[in-house]
Amino acid sequence: MPTAGLLVIGNEILSGKVVDTNSPYLARELRSLGVDLQRILTIEDDIDLIARETRAMSDAYDFVFTSGGIGPTHDDLTMDGIAKAFGRDIVLNESMVARIERAQGKPPNESQRKMAMVPDGAALVDAGDLWFPVVIVENVHIFPGIPELLRKKFESIRERFRGIPFLLKRVYVKQRESEIAEHLNDLLTEFPELLLGSYPKVGEEAFHVLLTLESRDPGYLQQALEGLLARLPGDAIHKVE
Amino acid sequence: MPTAGLLVIGNEILSGKVVDTNSPYLARELRSLGVDLQRILTIEDDIDLIARETRAMSDAYDFVFTSGGIGPTHDDLTMDGIAKAFGRDIVLNESMVARIERAQGKPPNESQRKMAMVPDGAALVDAGDLWFPVVIVENVHIFPGIPELLRKKFESIRERFRGIPFLLKRVYVKQRESEIAEHLNDLLTEFPELLLGSYPKVGEEAFHVLLTLESRDPGYLQQALEGLLARLPGDAIHKVE
Repeated sequence: MPTAGLLVIGNEILSGKVVDTNSPYLARELRSLGVDLQRILTIEDDIDLIARETRAMSDAYDFVFTSGGIGPTHDDLTMDGIAKAFGRDIVLNESMVARIERAQGKPPNESQRKMAMVPDGAALVDAGDLWFPVVIVENVHIFPGIPELLRKKFESIRERFRGIPFLLKRVYVKQRESEIAEHLNDLLTEFPELLLGSYPKVGEEAFHVLLTLESRDPGYLQQALEGLLARLPGDAIHKVE
Repeated sequence: MPTAGLLVIGNEILSGKVVDTNSPYLARELRSLGVDLQRILTIEDDIDLIARETRAMSDAYDFVFTSGGIGPTHDDLTMDGIAKAFGRDIVLNESMVARIERAQGKPPNESQRKMAMVPDGAALVDAGDLWFPVVIVENVHIFPGIPELLRKKFESIRERFRGIPFLLKRVYVKQRESEIAEHLNDLLTEFPELLLGSYPKVGEEAFHVLLTLESRDPGYLQQALEGLLARLPGDAIHKVE
């Protein structure tokens, strides 16, 4: 199963001025593709920090995604940080200059030329109808922080990441978590490969705990589901889906 | 200015099944208290990983907050991980047992006794009307993943963290980011202590970029604001707040 790390770059997230909706989006998308997202890290806009964390994630995971810090302003340091992570120079990419000129019918101004600076040897992949391509360095996929643009770009290349997806069953239970915890431990003893999640809900009338059962093997998942239902009292189940 | 790190523990976030609303909440709260949140890290429920990352954050920041992984089920490993981070045993806390018994009028069952296991020498701080206190080990403040409970607990101890808050001005600009980027760089040359954010908005009619100006010094902030407004054409400003 391919693994992934997500590096979110931006003071605006850490200072609470902007809510990071990119991480939940990518977490869901990667899960549905069968990619195992193992770490989400949010850091400040700082070249050395970006370089260090990018390199660590690149070494640890099959795919790395970055969000934020690409643009024309003083705090957009992601390209510099990623270049430094791999000991590359950051260079004016003539293909990027040509794309900007094609998009707006005139040559880029100084700020736009900054946006055409990418790590030496980066791969550029066209992203649907956007003039700005996805920039890829080694296994690092560089996305913008603006959610609408990130989504368009991710959608344009998502099939590159597809693994074997997990299958999911949800069981809504009326009992409290502390009343069923021992049944869950027993279930895991019998089904050690099962991925079992237990999420108490506050303020719900109809159920108290949402259980999630996951496996890539449909037969194993079905057996585990039956094993769970056999362990819980019949009137404890709100619904299964 | 006090610094902080936030460690989010939970497979359910990484697999996209649950959206992490605790991080945006704590980011906003800490900012308003004048605490500099420097890192948000989301990791899997794994004792060694929790131990390693907790220790690294504890060494690096004044305050550490953890979210998630406390409860009675198999995947609730935060207390074990934090005990390991500081080379402490995890022990049954008699005060926690007494609190549970007081809350429900009978002794805890086996699963509830698991919830009364905390790192040896942990401080317990009452959290409003909740029976479960805030558990603090060294500079690490252990919060539940359930948003309603996390908020109640944080509110009950938030004054412990207060520093000198930042003041904020927002300027909504009709021009595009690439048209004003050079003015912003000039502004930062004149006001190097200014925290300046620039956030393009897609799909907005009235403005294209939200600029944020921040400083702890009201006079400096006002001068920087005037410096910015003097640099931009008068008709470029949508509003200032």
